[in-house]
Amino acid sequence: MHTAHGDIETPIFMPVGTKATVKALDTNDLEKIGAQIILGNTYHLHLRPGEDLIDTFGGLHTFMNWNKPILTDSGGFQVFSLGDVRNTKNTKLRNIGDANTEKHAHQSMVAIDEDGVTFRSYIDGSEHRFTPEEAIRIQHKIGADIIMAFDECTPDTASLRYAKEAMERTHRWAARCIDEHKKDSHHHGYEQFLFGIIQGGNHSVLRIESATAITGMDFDGIAIGGESIGYNMEATKEILNTLLPLLPEDKPRYTMGVGFSPMDLFEVVERGIDMFDCVAPTRMARNGNVYVHKHISEKYRIDITNAKYREDKTPIDHDCLCYTCTHHSRAYLHHLFRENEILAQRLATIHNLHFFLSLMTDIREAIKHDRFLALKQEWM
Amino acid sequence: MHTAHGDIETPIFMPVGTKATVKALDTNDLEKIGAQIILGNTYHLHLRPGEDLIDTFGGLHTFMNWNKPILTDSGGFQVFSLGDVRNTKNTKLRNIGDANTEKHAHQSMVAIDEDGVTFRSYIDGSEHRFTPEEAIRIQHKIGADIIMAFDECTPDTASLRYAKEAMERTHRWAARCIDEHKKDSHHHGYEQFLFGIIQGGNHSVLRIESATAITGMDFDGIAIGGESIGYNMEATKEILNTLLPLLPEDKPRYTMGVGFSPMDLFEVVERGIDMFDCVAPTRMARNGNVYVHKHISEKYRIDITNAKYREDKTPIDHDCLCYTCTHHSRAYLHHLFRENEILAQRLATIHNLHFFLSLMTDIREAIKHDRFLALKQEWM
Repeated sequence: MHTAHGDIETPIFMPVGTKATVKALDTNDLEKIGAQIILGNTYHLHLRPGEDLIDTFGGLHTFMNWNKPILTDSGGFQVFSLGDVRNTKNTKLRNIGDANTEKHAHQSMVAIDEDGVTFRSYIDGSEHRFTPEEAIRIQHKIGADIIMAFDECTPDTASLRYAKEAMERTHRWAARCIDEHKKDSHHHGYEQFLFGIIQGGNHSVLRIESATAITGMDFDGIAIGGESIGYNMEATKEILNTLLPLLPEDKPRYTMGVGFSPMDLFEVVERGIDMFDCVAPTRMARNGNVYVHKHISEKYRIDITNAKYREDKTPIDHDCLCYTCTHHSRAYLHHLFRENEILAQRLATIHNLHFFLSLMTDIREAIKHDRFLALKQEWM
Repeated sequence: MHTAHGDIETPIFMPVGTKATVKALDTNDLEKIGAQIILGNTYHLHLRPGEDLIDTFGGLHTFMNWNKPILTDSGGFQVFSLGDVRNTKNTKLRNIGDANTEKHAHQSMVAIDEDGVTFRSYIDGSEHRFTPEEAIRIQHKIGADIIMAFDECTPDTASLRYAKEAMERTHRWAARCIDEHKKDSHHHGYEQFLFGIIQGGNHSVLRIESATAITGMDFDGIAIGGESIGYNMEATKEILNTLLPLLPEDKPRYTMGVGFSPMDLFEVVERGIDMFDCVAPTRMARNGNVYVHKHISEKYRIDITNAKYREDKTPIDHDCLCYTCTHHSRAYLHHLFRENEILAQRLATIHNLHFFLSLMTDIREAIKHDRFLALKQEWM
């Protein structure tokens, strides 16, 4: 993919930098790890520091001093999930009931109407409103190379009726996003690309309907959203199997929220996906969960805070070439985590992101040499 | 100064890495900032991860992957200050009363006898005992290039009687430290140097007595300890003025705890001091207090969390060449601090330490060209 801030080799895992920083790292770290593109989030950046401030810097690249590509999520997912009082940190949006109850439940903190969404800030409770047009205008000011249509992400447990209602609204919003985008797609002088998002929950009939609608519109790329995506890999695979024949060959495909475990990367790449992001590698790192090859752990990760690593002089993973593994022992990491030292989170984050991005390099090489399935087999 | 892990150009400010890390930085950062020597702390490292673990790594250099010189404080200051329930984070040890009351007060968590000190861990309340011999044996295992005699640091408000009693005990302990050190001064195969510590509180008669005793012993360097040192610069200057004529020309001189403000560095260097350390630059950085030249602020620092920096596109200090100032704006730093992002503490720490170490480079150059006082004048 070619963008104003450089080319992106696909398939690619994209580290998440929600609030204008990939947590615990600076942009120099990201370059060294080999990050080609990172994510920002429209919802968080709108609340703080605000898109107008970022606009005066000439966009997020300058504000955070990252001169490679950036993608911003539209904030749709966050408006609904952070607005739902029943949402917890470690799960995606959860909701049960019929269409009316569900809509009403959302309205406790999030009020949806045909025109847009009114919601309260998770920081100070202040009232904000996103319409499709406003979400695009904010993303123009933030200035990411790739921006996302404003969608409603329904919970997996949503009834067919409510999921359909939300999906159809999302399609109408998608058309409005395209119209708004055309007015100012070069806000900072370079082109921003707009991706549409396929919704439909776990109802394959809706997924097919949504794919047909979204791929029929003038988007630069096609994303697949939903509570299950990445979070429930069995459902994700099923949805992707359904969608695969419907996706155009000439547009990038992006699964939103995939990348919890190394094998997840293989699963989506195998199904033709080009881009994916997930907070898991960075969030798990900050809790001391670091990735390893399968011969070290069946789960592809170890908890470095476990007492058994107290005296372990080996690196996290002997086969890893990241800064952490080439400079520090498990025992030192274990000590830093026990002492709640900031450096612990930094070193673990460097490792987890390097582990994923280096695996993506291997996957791209394998694809070039037509041995993707062989590589997958080696990792299984 | 020549050590097994490299030479140290003096005078030098030494960043504090209490628990085997200078908080928020990795050792690569420290190299880039130009750190020549860093501190570790015997008290903290004894409690976690323990000197025996560090010993199996071949010492702290290998454990934390820092291959330049290290100095460890003996833990005396921490045993007394962290053992005192009335101590708070931002002050040194405080205590009032006559000799007996004071001794008794200490005994609530810290019991001193002629042979050593029994104290409780600040982490889990477990009982530990340091004798001069044990403090030296622990420091041999930790393996710093410069280690410190085990002393009792009395509060400034100590009566003459109690300060004298503690000082005399410190002198007897000093002799025992030297004896113990001679048994194993090359524990890891390279030489470790032992420094003695002058105490005596703010009583000049005691300071003179202590200087005479400590300089008369076979120490490799002479440190000046006490609650006031660094914490109260007027008292520090007075103590140094008293001690200056009594210190040998051929041994390094170290004021323990100096380096709160840039001008403090000038004050001790002017009085012939070679080495000093302080947690202030790193601790203040983590709270958003960053150093600047005087034309920016009379206090030589600004609070970057202040709302007036929200839209400020300039670096912290235009004249600073650190990574933070050459890559990021005040507005970005302000944003990171408001969002409690880990990167905030890292970037601010890089700046504050670079600011101090670069000033020390300028001071050394000025001394070489006989214009130290002119440089001081420029900074005042």
